[in-house]
Amino acid sequence: MRVGVLGAGQLARMIALAGVPLGLEFVFLDPSADACANRLGEPLVGDYRDPALLAQLAERADVVTYEFENVPANVAEFLVSHTQVHPCPKALAVAQDRLFEKTFFHDIGIPTPDYAAIDSLENLEQAMTTIGYPAILKSRTQGYDGKGQSVLKSPDDLKPAWELLQGVPSVVEAFVPFKREVSIIAVRSVSGETVFYPLSENLHRGGILRVSECRANDPLQQQAEDYVSRLLEALGYVGVLALELFDVNGKLLANEFAPRVHNSGHWTIEGAETSQFENHLRAILDLPLGSTAPVGHAAMVNFIGGLPATEDVLAIPHAHLHLYDKAPRKGRKVAHATIRAENAEQLSESVKKLAELADQVDDS
Amino acid sequence: MRVGVLGAGQLARMIALAGVPLGLEFVFLDPSADACANRLGEPLVGDYRDPALLAQLAERADVVTYEFENVPANVAEFLVSHTQVHPCPKALAVAQDRLFEKTFFHDIGIPTPDYAAIDSLENLEQAMTTIGYPAILKSRTQGYDGKGQSVLKSPDDLKPAWELLQGVPSVVEAFVPFKREVSIIAVRSVSGETVFYPLSENLHRGGILRVSECRANDPLQQQAEDYVSRLLEALGYVGVLALELFDVNGKLLANEFAPRVHNSGHWTIEGAETSQFENHLRAILDLPLGSTAPVGHAAMVNFIGGLPATEDVLAIPHAHLHLYDKAPRKGRKVAHATIRAENAEQLSESVKKLAELADQVDDS
Repeated sequence: MRVGVLGAGQLARMIALAGVPLGLEFVFLDPSADACANRLGEPLVGDYRDPALLAQLAERADVVTYEFENVPANVAEFLVSHTQVHPCPKALAVAQDRLFEKTFFHDIGIPTPDYAAIDSLENLEQAMTTIGYPAILKSRTQGYDGKGQSVLKSPDDLKPAWELLQGVPSVVEAFVPFKREVSIIAVRSVSGETVFYPLSENLHRGGILRVSECRANDPLQQQAEDYVSRLLEALGYVGVLALELFDVNGKLLANEFAPRVHNSGHWTIEGAETSQFENHLRAILDLPLGSTAPVGHAAMVNFIGGLPATEDVLAIPHAHLHLYDKAPRKGRKVAHATIRAENAEQLSESVKKLAELADQVDDS
Repeated sequence: MRVGVLGAGQLARMIALAGVPLGLEFVFLDPSADACANRLGEPLVGDYRDPALLAQLAERADVVTYEFENVPANVAEFLVSHTQVHPCPKALAVAQDRLFEKTFFHDIGIPTPDYAAIDSLENLEQAMTTIGYPAILKSRTQGYDGKGQSVLKSPDDLKPAWELLQGVPSVVEAFVPFKREVSIIAVRSVSGETVFYPLSENLHRGGILRVSECRANDPLQQQAEDYVSRLLEALGYVGVLALELFDVNGKLLANEFAPRVHNSGHWTIEGAETSQFENHLRAILDLPLGSTAPVGHAAMVNFIGGLPATEDVLAIPHAHLHLYDKAPRKGRKVAHATIRAENAEQLSESVKKLAELADQVDDS
């Protein structure tokens, strides 16, 4: 069985590492010959939109998946007409556009912060009279890791923020006074079997995820599962999906979802019975899903922009290092490490040490 | 950093799977272009004894290791003179010859069953007057998975057994009435840091390992650690070493050791904080060793000669499947599965199901 993946970055790499023991082969389509998953399968190097390469991918693979959501609609449709593709193009279409996404959330009863569609500066000024300050202006498409976003603190910020976005269709969202950011990783197989991981509690800085911690038995687990279940059902979703949420005094508001394996689920490699990567493969191949039960206490720390010495990471008790073989570059995720410990004290002690190492090399 | 491995079978494959997240690259030397690790690195295809290929391996790799102990002495010496090699050739030389091995055990105070060196039928007849029946006649070299061995139950068996071995130098060993077979996986780094895994309790049938179970807090752990420590020190050993022992009423007698990662340690992938494969790499690269603490309860079942359907294995609670991408063949190890469970009852229930699947496909 051969799995095709659009993209050959670290997510594709971790999918492949989970798939080799299951006897799977991989073919990757990525513009970079040096992409870090390429060594684990057959690389197709070139533009994602090149029909000849897409045809090769579809021909070589029994099933195609992707590691990023900004797959153009015509690319997804081309693949669907040639082979099996999971998750479905509809999930891509919804996740790619913040306005569609928020509307979709509302239609299926998942609450979000207040928002409004923005097409002009006048439009934005008008919307802000009801949304209120502070708020965040985001382009409807193409944003990730905090790119294409501006914080609006007062009416003076509106014009510069709108100009920064160069007039692209946007969404303005109320900034909610959240207690914490959480995400839930869910998995649904071709047969409709569905499992959920324990909530991840996430710490962002500069719009980039820094630390995720597994929160077993979180009081909001059930609420998050209810919301993400609606999403899975409404999309007829197959594979791993991550729903990011704000915890506002015990009420969850949806921020966004990613139709793919997700950085906030990397702790599952060591910290759950079955990793999100293996379960993504099981789901798209219609194999029985693996248990999502936590194994001890787990948290993950991202290394952004630079790498500490391997021996310094491995000297930290319970640390598991995952290098992506990517050249360090400002703001680029180049590795993560997971701590999986027997108790909360061990966990927090080692996470603290890891985070210190991460801060030392972080250039952002 | 690039690691060279002599051999590209399943042990090399699992070493590579552990090494990719550490940012390591691999080069394998194996006679088969189809060897199952080849896809995870750069394959050199040809005879292990080909000086040109060995020179390439030494040139391409920063450090060389191996997945089998029958590396000819001149091959090991060639590599040592060209690059770093771990474990050392001395460990190979001792492990390759059952007489050297037993003598070595005795010299460093590790007890073994009674034995005698055999060079002729007369020799064997004479030895059996003191060894006593039953006993096992084994060729001094080249035996593995029970090959090249004969059980001696009475004087009538001596001539046929000796003829079966075609007169090669041999060892006869008393068959000890062992309660169980155990092994201990130990790791020693270049710097001399040493760690031990919990004992594995092993079930063999037809000379082939079928099931290994992690025995945390075994009363014989300390005795096993004492023996294997002597071995590590006496050999100046670097890497993972497995010492197989008989438990005879609470006293351990050494059977043999393997100077490499070992089938009885496969449960460590899911069942220990750090797998034997990762710790082997950490050891030979002189990185800090990872914790060997057990994670829950774990056991491994080998699939010999044939494969069950993937979905049947994955439907068993807590099962983790490891296919080797090897064509099924009589008596050949083609995969294993590990059960990692929260308690002993879960473990034994799932192991029973797995063992049933293994028996259904087992052709031996």
